[in-house]
Amino acid sequence: MTIIEVPAREGRGVRVAAGQSVRVIDVDGGQVADTFAFRAEDVSEYHSAEHTRAVVSRLFPRPGEAFVTNHRRPILTLVDDTSPGIHDMLCAACDPERYTGLGVAGWHASCRENLEHAMAALGQPDIEIPQPINLFMNIPVRAEGELGWEPAPSRAGDAVTLRAEMDCFVVVSACPQDIVPINNGNPTPIAIELLDL
Amino acid sequence: MTIIEVPAREGRGVRVAAGQSVRVIDVDGGQVADTFAFRAEDVSEYHSAEHTRAVVSRLFPRPGEAFVTNHRRPILTLVDDTSPGIHDMLCAACDPERYTGLGVAGWHASCRENLEHAMAALGQPDIEIPQPINLFMNIPVRAEGELGWEPAPSRAGDAVTLRAEMDCFVVVSACPQDIVPINNGNPTPIAIELLDL
Repeated sequence: MTIIEVPAREGRGVRVAAGQSVRVIDVDGGQVADTFAFRAEDVSEYHSAEHTRAVVSRLFPRPGEAFVTNHRRPILTLVDDTSPGIHDMLCAACDPERYTGLGVAGWHASCRENLEHAMAALGQPDIEIPQPINLFMNIPVRAEGELGWEPAPSRAGDAVTLRAEMDCFVVVSACPQDIVPINNGNPTPIAIELLDL
Repeated sequence: MTIIEVPAREGRGVRVAAGQSVRVIDVDGGQVADTFAFRAEDVSEYHSAEHTRAVVSRLFPRPGEAFVTNHRRPILTLVDDTSPGIHDMLCAACDPERYTGLGVAGWHASCRENLEHAMAALGQPDIEIPQPINLFMNIPVRAEGELGWEPAPSRAGDAVTLRAEMDCFVVVSACPQDIVPINNGNPTPIAIELLDL
């Protein structure tokens, strides 16, 4: 078993073999983990929120169900979830344009840049930007389709276990959002536990 | 004013100038229109469902609100809607893998291929596949985030008017889905009305 620490506001990636599982752990609680998976052999195939919703006929899979790729093949199965089970798969990764729009002057860390850097470190500088699996993120869907932006309710040590269904790169960004309250105003670290096959 | 007929099960695209509007018309009623917009100068920028949801804090924009790109810039404004206002922005375009999964043997027309052909005809063979704006598509979000697949409630002649906020390519696919009931079991044509500037 290997632990990869994802410092607050940063991202890390790891290659995961088919059949191997990763646990994404909210170390201190209340922290969103933007999670991505790309097929190792060809990163133009990657987990797809819109294909996953269509395949499971839900906004988010339940334990036992899989996230599928843009070619509708299972890439990660949601094996276990010790958190309150509140996750988002509706919102884009935060990006430089998001922070500019929120009034930030100058550079601000973002999940998109964290993803790009983590994939470049894995030798994959040329990727599309998928819509993330936003673990622990609390975006309630209200009447008339209105979305809320609420603090993550996950507790310290809460974890989601994902099993790779193909050889893939898994990237996790400890979301640096500190303007809207999704991270309780205080971005904190995430840990990736790579379980032995 | 120019009318582009989109035959049942096919797709068509058109270049639209900034400030110009298009009306997407459900000719016979009860038909889904998968709609896409790409920035003309650089098609790696395109309408993004996940960025639009985040910017408008809703599952689908209201009249007066805009669909934004993957760089969070407005590309199409939803100007007017004479339909019952039921549209989807959660589900991927149907694709060959969708029909294989539904048990279809051999080729079946799909919105993804329709998009690819329409963009190739506009001189743009190399595109990412965005999550579509599924006009007239009825995917209710039920308790616990469950999604329904219901017949489109649009009537003959119902139309959505979209104003381009930048020079762009707009593609519409008259969805060929005839297995799940979203098109009332009978795919029919769509029309694109390109209004004069």
